[in-house]
This record gives sequence, structure tokens and C-alpha cells, in this order.
Amino acid sequence: MRVFIAGVDGYLGWSLAQHLLARGHVVAGADAFLRRRWVHEMGSWSATPVHPMPERLEALEEHFGRTVQFWEGDLTHYELVARIFDEFRPEAIVHLGECPSAPYSMIDAEHCAFVQRNNLVSTTNFVFAMEEFVPDAHLVKLGTMGEYGTPNVAIPEGFFEIEYRGRTDRMPFPRQAGSWYHWSKVHGSNNVMFACRLWGLRATDIMQGVVFGTRIDDMAEDDRLLTRLDFDQAFGTAINRFCCQALIGHPLTPFGLGHQKRGFLPLRDSMQCLTLILENPPDPGDYRVFNQFQEVFDITELAMKVQAAAGEMGLDVEVRNIENPRLELEDHFYAPDHQQLFDLGYSPSDVEEELGMMLMHLQRYTDRIQAKREVLIPDVRWDGRREKTRFLDSLVTSQPAPSSRFARATPETEDVDSEEPALG
Amino acid sequence: MRVFIAGVDGYLGWSLAQHLLARGHVVAGADAFLRRRWVHEMGSWSATPVHPMPERLEALEEHFGRTVQFWEGDLTHYELVARIFDEFRPEAIVHLGECPSAPYSMIDAEHCAFVQRNNLVSTTNFVFAMEEFVPDAHLVKLGTMGEYGTPNVAIPEGFFEIEYRGRTDRMPFPRQAGSWYHWSKVHGSNNVMFACRLWGLRATDIMQGVVFGTRIDDMAEDDRLLTRLDFDQAFGTAINRFCCQALIGHPLTPFGLGHQKRGFLPLRDSMQCLTLILENPPDPGDYRVFNQFQEVFDITELAMKVQAAAGEMGLDVEVRNIENPRLELEDHFYAPDHQQLFDLGYSPSDVEEELGMMLMHLQRYTDRIQAKREVLIPDVRWDGRREKTRFLDSLVTSQPAPSSRFARATPETEDVDSEEPALG
Repeated sequence: MRVFIAGVDGYLGWSLAQHLLARGHVVAGADAFLRRRWVHEMGSWSATPVHPMPERLEALEEHFGRTVQFWEGDLTHYELVARIFDEFRPEAIVHLGECPSAPYSMIDAEHCAFVQRNNLVSTTNFVFAMEEFVPDAHLVKLGTMGEYGTPNVAIPEGFFEIEYRGRTDRMPFPRQAGSWYHWSKVHGSNNVMFACRLWGLRATDIMQGVVFGTRIDDMAEDDRLLTRLDFDQAFGTAINRFCCQALIGHPLTPFGLGHQKRGFLPLRDSMQCLTLILENPPDPGDYRVFNQFQEVFDITELAMKVQAAAGEMGLDVEVRNIENPRLELEDHFYAPDHQQLFDLGYSPSDVEEELGMMLMHLQRYTDRIQAKREVLIPDVRWDGRREKTRFLDSLVTSQPAPSSRFARATPETEDVDSEEPALG
Repeated sequence: MRVFIAGVDGYLGWSLAQHLLARGHVVAGADAFLRRRWVHEMGSWSATPVHPMPERLEALEEHFGRTVQFWEGDLTHYELVARIFDEFRPEAIVHLGECPSAPYSMIDAEHCAFVQRNNLVSTTNFVFAMEEFVPDAHLVKLGTMGEYGTPNVAIPEGFFEIEYRGRTDRMPFPRQAGSWYHWSKVHGSNNVMFACRLWGLRATDIMQGVVFGTRIDDMAEDDRLLTRLDFDQAFGTAINRFCCQALIGHPLTPFGLGHQKRGFLPLRDSMQCLTLILENPPDPGDYRVFNQFQEVFDITELAMKVQAAAGEMGLDVEVRNIENPRLELEDHFYAPDHQQLFDLGYSPSDVEEELGMMLMHLQRYTDRIQAKREVLIPDVRWDGRREKTRFLDSLVTSQPAPSSRFARATPETEDVDSEEPALG
């Protein structure tokens, strides 16, 4: 299959390129290297070293016998997207070229506008170029489980049948995202749904859970093949950050009460699911939504799993909750469906085993994490302030949230340790 | 009250400025004059002459004893929005600065991206500047009834209580818009809803029906005070276009089967409703949605009302359906609520009377309509083609739509008059 990967230089994109090459697919990709810049802007870098693209492409050639046809450029420019689609004629397009960070989008008006613009326009460019050059191609759009928010009812996969005032209809399930970034994904989902209805395009919109892990089996032992692994507040996801914290003896830091529930999946599972989706495309005109995650976990439960895995390596780390910089429910109902990928044959990995492998693998990059350890405590707050969050010394889980606007646990002043975290 | 009007040079904006000045409010406004450029790009102009802004502002001073503080500039630039909010300190912001055209957004990838970018970023800039400078101000955001689409169930005002798999929640009513423009409004609504939850801002999101009419009582007989009245395919709305067609003896042209149902309201009612909303702001943190229209009409029914009103002036015009350039249901269930504005005291005008006044008033500009008569037949099609739509000589209402993708009546070839419309 001819697959075009937007954002091929990124965490998922670079992994997917190798996963698909290993399966004999013809892969092309584009990237403007914005992720490298954003992480730099956040004062950080990838825990794993990320090589320049020419070296990465050379490594693919050496290990897989062929490489990825690569375009450097900004996919919000329609001419570039049109040129790529016209030349490469993809049968599938995997859109991993969006800015994936909630905190980055919450910094200020400019960052909010940038993230929404970047994510929306790249997506509309793709559907227009599909209609113009490859109307039978399959668009695989990466959304996020965060599009749904945390409603008080079960979460179906995209659509639900409702009865309302005596009449019935099948409708999109209402989205209630929690950051400008998450809303950009909702806007993009809506745009793709419309394009399918409008032009009979086919698309799979993936509401993906939080991905963690550093490796997939197809990656040879070659630094140039490593995918990036971020641990800063903006581009590092929960488990990845916990693992990096554990490796340098930093406390693991759930936000607030720490009982947020989210769907999670290992990087190798994400690759497996993406491949299943590519190999089982929807019918023309079909816009389908898959909830893509292995299991729902409570954040504190996960922190304790990382703590246990680190313990087995002789690393003694504590779990210490910090102020929640976000506006989110910290203890809530959560029951999302995720049946369709299992129906296609998704076979999940073992989470504990994955955590162990990840810690072992990342251990060789401890110095790189240590060098940027200050990025492990967030300072981008949803209320607009930019101020490092503080440790919560005692968790008062029975205490009601003090403000109806911010449903987070704000401790009494005497419960707060205002020092920078001790690094053990 | 200190009211800032974004898009004060436009159809609604210029009318609202006068309506509010007449009621003693302090009014400021901004505009980049993009509407003038867009209409020019569509090969058209306003039926009513539109004077340069300095002359318009001078006329306000002469007739109302004071004018509007005006900034020329692009509201997608945050610095401009911040400067205005900091200097003017509005108590209310009415966002009429979006690109309001479905066909314009459907032209190509660039127009789609432009409309979504322009509409989204101006809105996020407003909420960020509110949070920074005037957190107690009231944002009045113009949305459209088109955000809802035409679901098979009743349409509430923004939110509904649902029961789903044995649990209940109050959720946003799912939106199913029908153009890139309409989706830009949905995206904007979602962004504003989030800003209210995030920062406790207050906003009224108006799902407005289709507005028609040329005058409000506050406009003195002075050409410089006239508001614009567009009749091209992109910026002219249904009734306004029917009236312009009637005045030059052009057939009135419902799209397709012509049984689309929409909510409509006269310009003077729109001004009345906006004023009611401004004078009855929501509580801090409250995001409320009002469906703003007087009555639901079938498009053909409206065309016949215009035909009758024209007949009373001695103008003999026919109603002739044309191919539908859009993708939309042409005969459907439609039951939207619109109670809240009536509860606030909205007193609707008489539609027939309004149509009569409008035709009388527009009669003096018949030459301007005649000069651009070629813009009365659309050529921007939702399937991506740019080709003038043709008259449907006989409407075969019992015939099923030939394509599942485009639910419109495509006639047999022999039923089609491929000539440009006769202008009577």
C-alpha cells in the first residue's frame, strides 16, 4: 500500500514509517520539523537523541532496504499538499502532522491561534487534495479521546442513537474538550466528517488514548532509528513523564487528586492499531470513529505501576501529587467503548511488561533527562498564569473543590511545599 | 453601555451601530473592509451604495450627535484586539466580524482555510483579550441556525438533557453543519463555550436565522447611513436575493425542490433581539445559546410571498427553481425552539409588510442590481465544480434523488434550460 505520513519526523510518525516499511508498504512523508522547535521552545529536548532527517532516512535505507520519500515543508500550504498528493498518489494518508499539546495551546492567544490554525488548515488541505487527486484514498486522522471530555454518560465510538421528544436520530456524540488543542481536534473531526458526507471520501477518525513507550519491535539497534521521547510539560505524556521522573529519582507527579481516568496504550499497540485500520479501510463515503486505547487507568494507579516497575530495577521513587495546572475533573465517571479495534483483531500488549522494557531502554539516556530536569514540573496553567505548580503535601480527597470554575484541589497554604522538588 | 462592534462596516454591524447610538450607548467598532473586497471578488456590489467609512462616521456625528470610535484593522491580529480592548474597555463585544458566506467558503481549499482561520482566530483573540482586559464583559457571538443542520429531531437552544444507557447528562446538542463556513461557526461556538467554562467569561451565542431587509427605523434618510444589501450568490441571502430578482423582473430562484425550511427574521428584528440580549446579559461564567429567528418558512413559500409583494407594486415575476448548487436536504423535518428571546420581550414585525417596504426602498437602486444581474445565478457548487446552475423546467418532486451523496433533484437533460436566464 502507498501510505503518506504527515508528521513523519514525530513520535508516532517515525515509528509508523518503520512499522510500515517492515511490512512491505511504500511510505512517503512530510514534516516541517516544528515539533523539534516546539520542544526547544519549552526548554527541553527528547530523552532519546533525535538525528537529522537525512541520517534518519539513510538508516531506513540500510535497515529496510528502502527509505521514505520525504518532503520538508508546511502542510498548511495547499500547494505543497497538492504537489505531494499529485506526485505520490497515496492510497492512505495518516495525519500525524498536528500540534499535539494541550499546554502548548494554553500558553497565550498566539499559541492558541497557532495550534488551531495549524491543525485545522492541514486537515482541510488534505481533504481538498484527496478530492482533487486521490478521491478513493483513505484518510486516517489522529484525534484524541480528549475530544469527548468526561461526560456523565457512557462514551460510544463517535456516534449514538438518541431519542429526543419522541423522535429518534443517529447523531455525532457531543464533544466537550478541555483545552484549545483538544478543541482543535474536535474541529478537525467535524471537518473530516463533513468532507466524507460532501465528497464521498473515506476516513477513520481515531480517538486515541495516551500513548507511552519508546520502542517497537521493528526498530533495529541504531540510534538513528530511535523515535523521540518527550518529557517536558507540553509534549511529554503522563506515563512517559513518570518513567523519566523515576529514572532520575524525581517524585512521580499526578495532578491534583490524581483520580483522572484516561485510556492508555503502548506505542507498539498504537502501531498495531494503525496498521489494522490501514489494512481494513472503510467504504467510500464512510466516516468512522474508533476509540483507540487498551485500557482505562486512574492516573495514580499508573504512577504506582511505574513506581513498582522502577522498584524492580532498584529505583526507589515516591508518588507526590502536585497542584493541577489544568481545569479538569479529578474524580469522575468514565466509560468509553473501544470494541471496534478488538473486532478487527487488536491484540493488546502487557502494560507492566511494557513499562519495564521502557525503563530499561530509557536508562541509557538518564543524563539527557537529568540535564533538563526543570521541565518535569509544569508552569502553564489553564487559568492563564505561568507559574510552577507546587507539591501537595497532604491530599484531602474528601474536601470539596473550592471554586466552581476550577475543579481542582487547591490546598490550604500550610499544606503546600513551595520549594522546587527535591531530586532525590 | 460601552459596546464594541467587530465588523462595524457590515450589513448587521452598520445597522447595529445606529440602533445602539439611537439608544444612547457608547459605540466603538473595527473593520478591515474585507466584506467590500469579498463582494468585489464575487463580481458584485451592494444594491445600496456603500460610502467610505470617514463619510459614514461623519453622517453618524450629524444625525446622532456623536459617532463611533473606529479602528481599521484585522482582528485576527491579537495586538490590535488587545489594544482596542485596553483602550475602549467595552462592557459588551458583538462579534459581527466573521466571514458569513457558505458559498465563499466552498470555492476551494484556500477559501475554506481563509474562512475557518479568519472566523476562529478573531473569536479566540476576543476571549483572550476579554480575559486579559475586561473579564466581566459580555461577548455576543453571532452564530447561525445552520450550525444545527437539519436533524430528524427537534432542535433545542444549544443544550439538551439526554438519557443514554441508563445515565443522564446535560450536553451540547450535536451540530451537523453543511458548509465550511457553517462549520467555522460551530468551531467558534465550541471555543466560546470552552472560554466561559475556563475563565468564567459570559457569552451569548446567537444561532441566528436568515436576515432580510434594508432598513431600520433609526436610519435617517441619508445615503451615508444606508447599510449594504448584497445579492450575489455568496453574500446575498435568500429573501434579499429574491427581492433584487423581483425588481429587475428576473425569476425568483429557489434551489432544487425548494422545500428547505429555515428560520427567518427582518433586519429590524435582528437589531431588536441583539439589543434585548445586550440589555439582559447572562451571569458570569454562563454560556447561553439563543435561537434567533421569527418564524420558520419553506423557501418556496417565501419566494411566493416576495412574488405577491412585487405583484402589489405591479411587478409580474415568476418563481422558477434552479439546480441546487448545495448539498442539503430539500424536504425535511425541522422543529427548532426559539423561546428565550420571546421570553425577554421580543416582539416580531410583520413579514409581508417588511417585504413590501423593502421592495419599495430598493426600487431606487434597480439600476445597480441590473448592472450586476449575472451574479443572481450561482456557480459555486458543493461538489467542487464552478459552473452556473441551470433552471429546472419541471419539478418532479416524486422523483428520488439520483445520487446518495447529493440529495438534490437533478432533472433529466431534456428538462433543463441551459440558457442564461431571460431577464424579462
